[in-house]
Amino acid sequence: MVHPHEALFSERAANIKQSAVRDVFEISMQPGLVSLAGGNPYLQSLPLERLGAVAADIITNHGLQALQYGGGQGTLELRRQICEVMAAEGITDADPDNVVITAGSQSAQDIAAKVFCNPGDVILIEDPTYVGALNAFEAYQVDVQPVRVDEDGLVPAELLRRIEELRAAGKTVKMLYTIPNFSNPSGVTLAADRRPEIVRICREANILVLEDNPYGLLKFDGELQLPLRAGNPDDVLYLGSFSKIFAPGLRIGWALVPAHLKQRFYLASEAVTLCPPPFNQMLVSAYLRDFDWMAQVRTYRALYQDRCDAMLSALAEHMPAGVSWTTPAGGFFIWLTLPASVDTYPLLHQGIDAGVVFVPGAAFTSAPGPSNTLRLAFSSATPENIREGVRRLAPVLRAAVGR
Amino acid sequence: MVHPHEALFSERAANIKQSAVRDVFEISMQPGLVSLAGGNPYLQSLPLERLGAVAADIITNHGLQALQYGGGQGTLELRRQICEVMAAEGITDADPDNVVITAGSQSAQDIAAKVFCNPGDVILIEDPTYVGALNAFEAYQVDVQPVRVDEDGLVPAELLRRIEELRAAGKTVKMLYTIPNFSNPSGVTLAADRRPEIVRICREANILVLEDNPYGLLKFDGELQLPLRAGNPDDVLYLGSFSKIFAPGLRIGWALVPAHLKQRFYLASEAVTLCPPPFNQMLVSAYLRDFDWMAQVRTYRALYQDRCDAMLSALAEHMPAGVSWTTPAGGFFIWLTLPASVDTYPLLHQGIDAGVVFVPGAAFTSAPGPSNTLRLAFSSATPENIREGVRRLAPVLRAAVGR
Repeated sequence: MVHPHEALFSERAANIKQSAVRDVFEISMQPGLVSLAGGNPYLQSLPLERLGAVAADIITNHGLQALQYGGGQGTLELRRQICEVMAAEGITDADPDNVVITAGSQSAQDIAAKVFCNPGDVILIEDPTYVGALNAFEAYQVDVQPVRVDEDGLVPAELLRRIEELRAAGKTVKMLYTIPNFSNPSGVTLAADRRPEIVRICREANILVLEDNPYGLLKFDGELQLPLRAGNPDDVLYLGSFSKIFAPGLRIGWALVPAHLKQRFYLASEAVTLCPPPFNQMLVSAYLRDFDWMAQVRTYRALYQDRCDAMLSALAEHMPAGVSWTTPAGGFFIWLTLPASVDTYPLLHQGIDAGVVFVPGAAFTSAPGPSNTLRLAFSSATPENIREGVRRLAPVLRAAVGR
Repeated sequence: MVHPHEALFSERAANIKQSAVRDVFEISMQPGLVSLAGGNPYLQSLPLERLGAVAADIITNHGLQALQYGGGQGTLELRRQICEVMAAEGITDADPDNVVITAGSQSAQDIAAKVFCNPGDVILIEDPTYVGALNAFEAYQVDVQPVRVDEDGLVPAELLRRIEELRAAGKTVKMLYTIPNFSNPSGVTLAADRRPEIVRICREANILVLEDNPYGLLKFDGELQLPLRAGNPDDVLYLGSFSKIFAPGLRIGWALVPAHLKQRFYLASEAVTLCPPPFNQMLVSAYLRDFDWMAQVRTYRALYQDRCDAMLSALAEHMPAGVSWTTPAGGFFIWLTLPASVDTYPLLHQGIDAGVVFVPGAAFTSAPGPSNTLRLAFSSATPENIREGVRRLAPVLRAAVGR
């Protein structure tokens, strides 16, 4: 029997749905399985005992600030430090006054959709893209529309074509959401020469770029890629995160908001949570101030490169013909593509029977129907486990490709 | 010149506005002022050094859990403990599976509006009510409609009348938002005999009760009032918070959601923040497990009663004729009413010149125009400062009443 309260749900409630990823993560906790599913950072390399001592100091000696309400935009100290982190990421003109600290960059995605999108408005996305952003956008009845991506990321001519096509169909295009560096889930990086072109296309079309860059500092080697935001303060709303370079469990991310949009973005953020947790901000501040956080970033780079190499060489050794994959320059993920006839969702259960878990590609797209892709994370398993996981996965994929 | 991005704002963005309260809080930081503005709990009585040691233990010995991503609903341990806290509040049938841990109960108010309200839908409120809830609701273009309150809280006959009146006008009424115990800002408590009647009226009208009870345990003495949720599991979405009985800076609150509504509420919460911060949850869990948290609640009760008494006796001594005020049985706030001709907003600046800060009543209502009311908080100032603050306030109000 349907409860009469069913009539109380908002129209947008129908768009709030179970993430396919969540099921997979719960499964991946089962003992004996090799999980290549979750994009968890490898926290074992953090100096936990020293961090514990810092936490004790914050609460013991600054507890009246750490445990009390704080300002809605976040502490000035952390907003200043975030500008230094962004300088390391390639953004050198950020003003702490335009930084809004949020509950992870996830919360900033929610606020961006809230502040900018009416039901039916379009946000352009890469396909595949981050499932959390899809969930945040769709909860506001946003019409999420893909732009074609190749091995160098978003294709500018395709972006232009899609904008024109959607406008011709009477759609209002508000934002482009992009993860330019080592994208979750594809591992793809947007080519340097495409970046100014994409910003220019969006500027001329009066579309705001929502640039999500949680992995930018985790490039395995060589010069970092300049963010789209670098040199474009008015055109790009930039999202950063401490989840990948420090600790996701503190839920501290940020938005660097164009000055002319900041006030409303900040007020919307304040209306959701009053303030980001002061203790969590103070712990991040202490980490940035008193620890060699860039050395930790270098440790992570070497660690994840090693794991990525282990996965790439295991894939080369074990994968059957017909399976291709991306070669990321950083980040956490490799993206596999199988022949078009294969649906990877049923393979998940065969993989579990074989002792390995991945995320089927259907989770990362707004398109309905089956997907012939899947995501493997190399961030949280050891190289040995990664090799074992790929070894277990190979016969499952071989059988699927052979059918 | 208007930036072309102005065209990108959503219709709801116009409803996201500066809270009048925020200005006042910033002013109240000025040295030399007695602040009776902010409803901050008095954290000096917390065992900070022992809490610091617990925080160190959590990060040092359980850091891989505390600093990693967690489940979207919150840890099972804390959800079980929250059921024990609710049992102390008078709700004995709560199931941890129906508890969703949120970033303060503020975030739960945001989610409730998101999941239940289309633009133009009505949420009934007490007038005056909590400014943060007004901000959260109005950001979703909710039509916030007051129900008359007397010294015993919501008037059931008025509730019924307003529902009928709004429905006759073609409105869709979705929820009643109420703070039944020692309301912020009025300090008023809903009479026990009205509680079942209000739930019954809402049930029969198919309106969900959103019960916000952050102060319930802070009744100065005598038996606690039974929450509206007690014995009414299907009719009431109950919001709880650790901000007043432990520490607001951790931003940990919760919603106890009717079983038939839980899944969508939980998914909407997950889409905003992925998960509540595991470290913060573990610290609250340790506090509930290893500390005598009810003894701390009793300490708070005595402390706030003492401060409330100081404020009441100072008001009786200094206030001019024509000013009346509530006598709270718990919580943080006393509500003053001046003659109808007085607008308290300009008095704020006269108060500051006299060395005392309060919050003008206009902040706590959805009605436009001036207000002859103001809120005084007795939670964060010492009894001595409270007496001094009221002494400074008296001539300002006397002059206003005399005009």
